[in-house]
Amino acid sequence: MFAEIITIGDELLIGQTIDTNSSWIGEQMNGIGLQVSHITSIKDQRDQILNSLKLAANRSSLVIITGGLGPTNDDITKQTLCEYFDSELTLNTNVLEKIAYYFENKNLEMLDVNKDQALLPHNCEVLENIRGTASGMWFEKEGVVYLSLPGVPYEMKGIMMENGLPRIKERFSKGKVVNKTVKTHGIGESYLAKLIKEWEQNLSVDQISLAYLPSPGIVKLRLTAIGEDEKLLLKKIDYYIDELNYLIPNYIYGYNKDTLESVVGDLLRKKSFSLSLAESCTGGHIAKMITSVSGCSDYFKGSVVAYSDEIKQSLLSVEPEYIESFGAVSKEVVEQMAIGLTKKFNTDFGLATSGIAGPTGGTKEKPVGTVWIAVAGPEGVVSKKFTFGNSRERNIIISSLSALNMLRTELLK
Amino acid sequence: MFAEIITIGDELLIGQTIDTNSSWIGEQMNGIGLQVSHITSIKDQRDQILNSLKLAANRSSLVIITGGLGPTNDDITKQTLCEYFDSELTLNTNVLEKIAYYFENKNLEMLDVNKDQALLPHNCEVLENIRGTASGMWFEKEGVVYLSLPGVPYEMKGIMMENGLPRIKERFSKGKVVNKTVKTHGIGESYLAKLIKEWEQNLSVDQISLAYLPSPGIVKLRLTAIGEDEKLLLKKIDYYIDELNYLIPNYIYGYNKDTLESVVGDLLRKKSFSLSLAESCTGGHIAKMITSVSGCSDYFKGSVVAYSDEIKQSLLSVEPEYIESFGAVSKEVVEQMAIGLTKKFNTDFGLATSGIAGPTGGTKEKPVGTVWIAVAGPEGVVSKKFTFGNSRERNIIISSLSALNMLRTELLK
Repeated sequence: MFAEIITIGDELLIGQTIDTNSSWIGEQMNGIGLQVSHITSIKDQRDQILNSLKLAANRSSLVIITGGLGPTNDDITKQTLCEYFDSELTLNTNVLEKIAYYFENKNLEMLDVNKDQALLPHNCEVLENIRGTASGMWFEKEGVVYLSLPGVPYEMKGIMMENGLPRIKERFSKGKVVNKTVKTHGIGESYLAKLIKEWEQNLSVDQISLAYLPSPGIVKLRLTAIGEDEKLLLKKIDYYIDELNYLIPNYIYGYNKDTLESVVGDLLRKKSFSLSLAESCTGGHIAKMITSVSGCSDYFKGSVVAYSDEIKQSLLSVEPEYIESFGAVSKEVVEQMAIGLTKKFNTDFGLATSGIAGPTGGTKEKPVGTVWIAVAGPEGVVSKKFTFGNSRERNIIISSLSALNMLRTELLK
Repeated sequence: MFAEIITIGDELLIGQTIDTNSSWIGEQMNGIGLQVSHITSIKDQRDQILNSLKLAANRSSLVIITGGLGPTNDDITKQTLCEYFDSELTLNTNVLEKIAYYFENKNLEMLDVNKDQALLPHNCEVLENIRGTASGMWFEKEGVVYLSLPGVPYEMKGIMMENGLPRIKERFSKGKVVNKTVKTHGIGESYLAKLIKEWEQNLSVDQISLAYLPSPGIVKLRLTAIGEDEKLLLKKIDYYIDELNYLIPNYIYGYNKDTLESVVGDLLRKKSFSLSLAESCTGGHIAKMITSVSGCSDYFKGSVVAYSDEIKQSLLSVEPEYIESFGAVSKEVVEQMAIGLTKKFNTDFGLATSGIAGPTGGTKEKPVGTVWIAVAGPEGVVSKKFTFGNSRERNIIISSLSALNMLRTELLK
């Protein structure tokens, strides 16, 4: 059986909002062994909603709809659902009470448009929303299950975790889909493919499928096996991952949900090391990555975003003559930044970046994309020069990943 | 006429990659007056691709396909396109030369899988890709135009900007769609809707449609008018925006592409003020936002991410007794952070945050979500307490936006 997702909202079609709901729902479905076959984004418009529901019902047993349930006037989803499910809006006093309580609790006045959110199709089962005022709805029609959920990701996810997913699992989950993802940094997609060509060919013998998922600075390898015996599937996948670890040990930094920042964090915690950062071209991006990990205060002491030479001197004790002789983007300066940093913050490790993110600031000798990264640690300081491309956004992301990977390598020594 | 977008890739359906291509293409189409009616994400699978192409051709005059053109083995899009367009893969020597040059230029070896990327359907027009090795393709069949583009956003965008969009514009652009977006911070969707109810009702008289687009900390209002005379449409929209500025002046921080960080940056530059940051709970997120704006070094001197009390004391001159008496998350400490910062970095303005992002660290008096923000400037220091929710990610984002908005308000004084 297949599931599919319909996301409703003009903002998705004119590019003002990126649809992150579908990806999250897809991941959840995949986790309980349901395959999502289609994701469709459409306007908040009667005909499109009705047509998409009909089309989905012909292909799938489960249809998850998000969006179009807000309190304001541009949402007509609820009326259209009534038409499709041959229903009518009736006041759900239970829901109204909860909405009233929601506003009381926040010390906010309940408006008429909020009260209207307790008007729900009479033949749906309500999926409670404790984070907002738009209820989730569960419908069944001719053997197909439909969930309609608010588009606000935070509310949608809450309803799914607490009410939607457990019911979907109970109703549909059968065969198992086992995925495992290997995460690599430092090698491009086609080079990786060449290195692991034979290994990849063997996968199909064992009916494991492979996908290459490239993103800036990272290539993920997703292995998928489908069958009845979850343990056996996992064992088969693990066997191939062991082989991969033998083939390309230096490029693999983690698996599944691992991120470079979480892997580095775990290593620091395990070894009781502390970390500080000095970011020039990465402008806070590494600090943002590190602090996105809850509990990072165990090892992360702080960061200096040193955007001016003045700050590099006063806060990081970089000698002015060094900046004059070698330039701010140089081996000498970035190493001094990393060393100065560990002293200033009194940490075991210091990670420093200095580069030209672009689009302006490049020269012939040091074009846009030139980045120096240094790691200072108990054993001394190491540094490396990278040459990335012309896109500011990509340069910041790839520099941050490369810096974290350099630190990871040092921590593994 | 309608356009639609088909994005191909298992990774989109199992939630490993968020589809950002559709949103970007939607925005471009909207900019040249073409309405995207559907976005569909499907697997890299023959039947699904063929069915989706047929369905799209029945509804739309322009179909833009991304993904499925990578050099590795999980991509079967090109073969399926051959089937659909009654074509066959032939070697394009011109493209092969360019691929060879691409690798030569990067000092990389050209692999066989890369050479295969010069195999293209004989009846497509090639849209050159100077950023990678997968060419874009332009097909026409029974009056419908199809573009097939690689899935890597950086390459797809390059091909579109240089080759795809100009041709699409020439071929299809007719009536004008004029959009303008008003960006607000500090008020929820339903309260905003109540405040501007009458104004909203008048919009429809002038055939302007309105959409509320909420995201954490921000509600965007998008006004849309469709017609022939672009100038007149814009004039009508501007009239209503002037009225809105009269109704809710304190909540509006910008329009269209404006972000809080770009607006604050413009104000700082205009007034020749410099800025430094001290981030505790926001952990580098504000620095990342500020430095995402190219040219920010004109006004941004740097930032300290002060994750430990020790750093707050040593780098920002916060008195230890203050932290002991009032706690790190307090009016007293955050104000000292902001003042200490302006001295340390020698800047006109200092922006400081201290709070409990969660999920751990909350107490009864200071629950998770409690955040103090201070702005120190030439006229002294102001501070404010905020109480957000339980989600770490949301707390960091909303705290960062609130801090930038406080700074904006001070800069406007």
